[in-house]
Amino acid sequence: MAKDKIRRPRAETPKGFRDYFGAEVTARAAMLRRIAEVYHAYGFDALETSGVETVEALGKFLPDVDRPNEGVFAWQEDVEGAKPGDWLALRYDLTAPLARVYAQHRNDLPTPYRRYAMGPVWRNEKPGPGRFRQFYQCDADTVGAPSVAADAEICAMLADTLEAVGISRGDYIVRVNNRKVLNGVMEVAGVLDPSEPEKFAAERGIVLRAIDKLDRLGTNGVRALLGEGRKDDSGDFTKGAGLGAEQAEVVMGFMEARRDTAPETLARLRELVGGSAMGAEGVDELETIAALLDAQGMGPDRVVIDPSVVRGLGYYTGPVFEAELTFEILDEKGRPRQFGSVAGGGRYDDLVKRFTGQAVPATGVSIGVDRLLAALAAKGRSEAEAQGPVVVTVMDRDRMADYQAMASELRAAGIRAEVYLGNPKNFGNQMKYADRRGSPVAVIEGGDEKDRGVVQIKDLILGAQIAQNATLEEWKDRPSQIEVPRAELVARVRAMIEGQSS
Amino acid sequence: MAKDKIRRPRAETPKGFRDYFGAEVTARAAMLRRIAEVYHAYGFDALETSGVETVEALGKFLPDVDRPNEGVFAWQEDVEGAKPGDWLALRYDLTAPLARVYAQHRNDLPTPYRRYAMGPVWRNEKPGPGRFRQFYQCDADTVGAPSVAADAEICAMLADTLEAVGISRGDYIVRVNNRKVLNGVMEVAGVLDPSEPEKFAAERGIVLRAIDKLDRLGTNGVRALLGEGRKDDSGDFTKGAGLGAEQAEVVMGFMEARRDTAPETLARLRELVGGSAMGAEGVDELETIAALLDAQGMGPDRVVIDPSVVRGLGYYTGPVFEAELTFEILDEKGRPRQFGSVAGGGRYDDLVKRFTGQAVPATGVSIGVDRLLAALAAKGRSEAEAQGPVVVTVMDRDRMADYQAMASELRAAGIRAEVYLGNPKNFGNQMKYADRRGSPVAVIEGGDEKDRGVVQIKDLILGAQIAQNATLEEWKDRPSQIEVPRAELVARVRAMIEGQSS
Repeated sequence: MAKDKIRRPRAETPKGFRDYFGAEVTARAAMLRRIAEVYHAYGFDALETSGVETVEALGKFLPDVDRPNEGVFAWQEDVEGAKPGDWLALRYDLTAPLARVYAQHRNDLPTPYRRYAMGPVWRNEKPGPGRFRQFYQCDADTVGAPSVAADAEICAMLADTLEAVGISRGDYIVRVNNRKVLNGVMEVAGVLDPSEPEKFAAERGIVLRAIDKLDRLGTNGVRALLGEGRKDDSGDFTKGAGLGAEQAEVVMGFMEARRDTAPETLARLRELVGGSAMGAEGVDELETIAALLDAQGMGPDRVVIDPSVVRGLGYYTGPVFEAELTFEILDEKGRPRQFGSVAGGGRYDDLVKRFTGQAVPATGVSIGVDRLLAALAAKGRSEAEAQGPVVVTVMDRDRMADYQAMASELRAAGIRAEVYLGNPKNFGNQMKYADRRGSPVAVIEGGDEKDRGVVQIKDLILGAQIAQNATLEEWKDRPSQIEVPRAELVARVRAMIEGQSS
Repeated sequence: MAKDKIRRPRAETPKGFRDYFGAEVTARAAMLRRIAEVYHAYGFDALETSGVETVEALGKFLPDVDRPNEGVFAWQEDVEGAKPGDWLALRYDLTAPLARVYAQHRNDLPTPYRRYAMGPVWRNEKPGPGRFRQFYQCDADTVGAPSVAADAEICAMLADTLEAVGISRGDYIVRVNNRKVLNGVMEVAGVLDPSEPEKFAAERGIVLRAIDKLDRLGTNGVRALLGEGRKDDSGDFTKGAGLGAEQAEVVMGFMEARRDTAPETLARLRELVGGSAMGAEGVDELETIAALLDAQGMGPDRVVIDPSVVRGLGYYTGPVFEAELTFEILDEKGRPRQFGSVAGGGRYDDLVKRFTGQAVPATGVSIGVDRLLAALAAKGRSEAEAQGPVVVTVMDRDRMADYQAMASELRAAGIRAEVYLGNPKNFGNQMKYADRRGSPVAVIEGGDEKDRGVVQIKDLILGAQIAQNATLEEWKDRPSQIEVPRAELVARVRAMIEGQSS
């Protein structure tokens, strides 16, 4: 009695996690393969680290440092032979593990070390509609290359990659900026003193995140965050950077410095960074990147200099870049909006230093694979739904061996096939199953057919078309079910499938 | 001052985790792709669940239930919007998540639901040499199919899959048994009373795990575990099932019931299960499976009935199977040993019932992808080491754009290529880099070459061969470095690479 009261486990994913079925999985796998091909062609080698790292190796580099929660899934080691008490966590990106790998294996790796990596990452964030706590990233990074040629190459590769996965030229733009320019501007505005780098760190962090929210909050929202702070629609107040009106104007001017051509934008940036040596260096780097991209035929239809790109992450030290899809989609309320960012990255020269004490220059990009898949789906360009298997129906459960032999023959000929393995009593259920699987053809062999050495093959695609169509006239010449000699099974099924796709 | 004393993070994976580089990653990806192709041809659809599940959904089905630790990595939810206090865990296999998925989505899924899944799973076990806490599985399961035709199909597919990934016929065997037969034997031995199924549960668990250790402990070790218990080499004592000598003999007789042919083995099993109805049903099922496999041409060189296979997992309810590689490898001490198990599975009719209260028949197989890769490597049949990129060297750092243009041209022609992005000052370092990357060709264009409109292309494979060979005579006709017009760069690099592989 008491037993019956034991509560059954809930059949649910944890909040913020989801399942992917069939074509969702294979479309992602195909996209990852295509991205890897481009990365590989550019000379990057594969690396796969585990999902679990020590918390100390990961460090705290999540963009969302405002929140009290650290944003990772973490727990303590409790097994003998490990290091009980050590904190472990799921990786939140693929860059922190790369820094750990390079520091750990640097004597065995070539320098520069160029690697790509793909896989899930986890963020312990408040789940919400469309916000998942596990998602895929696909990164490429060059570690040990001080030259901005490495950054320019990443931008070019990002543009090539987007086209390789099916985003047409004109539907995306790679935008490039440089943190050094921003630092120069902040020096001018008085929120960075090069001789005391730590002094305004908190303010600079707020400035950075404010600029990063331009898309979402608009000019006024950013201006409020640069000043005293901002109250959002729900009434929550976010403390601002405390800049004076003039200081804020300097920063706003930076964000709006983009002009029609790269030379004009660069000239405007030179004005803004004024006497800041760091700022001038940043502009020089952008100029070099622009020249390198130009030489590779990467024009402003693919990559542009855009000072409003800053990227939220605190660890970037030089060029930063972001790929944005420029076409409009409809949001959940049916309003058109730009699809937005699908990839981003930049130069981070200090991540390896955490481990080794020596600065190692590095730069890389991360593609948000799930967002990119959503974009292709929105454009109606996702992979075609995979075709279901030919279903060999079961008319006589004592002859499973015969049916299995048919499925084997079909598979040996390269045709996806299976025997119906549910309860065969109700033939209607078998047909419903074939329909649900998107099967192109069903094979039927009852006792009568068996005796006569024939099988029935049923065209399920045609059958569905006929079912939708009141006038049967036009289907007359093409029967939806035919009887063929058993020996011709494979050839006739193949012909039927080929007829469907023609 | 104090700052310098801050301890740097250790650049280490947690114990029991590791990194995979280059060809290790791509070889695994290629194997997963090949396995997926076979599963797909058999009519299975892809499913990808997240790495994280609720602890209650996962349940406790790990084979190693002896240990106090539950064997999973788990933590509590602590984020608003989730369910703070709920326990989450990394999945330890792909079967438990499948049961959850089927229970959650059963109204939207076809029945039978046939899915394959691949990805990492995590076990919170004591790490040791070669024992990793994250590893890959690749599963296929049919949910909702009561017939043992589904089990027979899984066995046939497993054999086909092993051959598809490069294991030759004769180098593997799929062994099949049935838990119902074992239960019948235990009924005869008096450790199972069909009218009181819970009564001897603990003893049966010990019997099961003891039989599963036959390979490792030998006959005497198993006999000890069936009786009072066993003291291992380290002096640790494992409590036994407490069977009397006669009872233990019955169980031992079962394990050794395999005969030369399937009919003889089945006849012997019928003797052993005596009057047990459950045991007789199990033997009938094995007979059906043998007949179905036979009809598909799966002879005893590929699949055999073998009563010594039991599989450690507690949740199996009917047929169980295991794929074993039969060739010898050398262990870490240089002694030959059989490679052993690389895949296993069976029928588990009660996993979905945990959630829904209704029994749902299911059967499936899980391939240990990392072990299978190790096996292929041991046989020298792993994927060939991937070729490194053509390296365009940097002779003049002001002409990076020229070098990038060369790399772009090569890539556009389908040749993997990159510009050297490290510090170009030392040309020797550039050559060392190319060597380390396994580059086939280096491209060199100094100021002099630029002026003359030519480039040097250097055959690094040939260069390495010459370096190893004292007599240069045989290389006379094929210089390791040639000068070619800049316009012929792509064609001549391609010809050089093709010459290397011929």
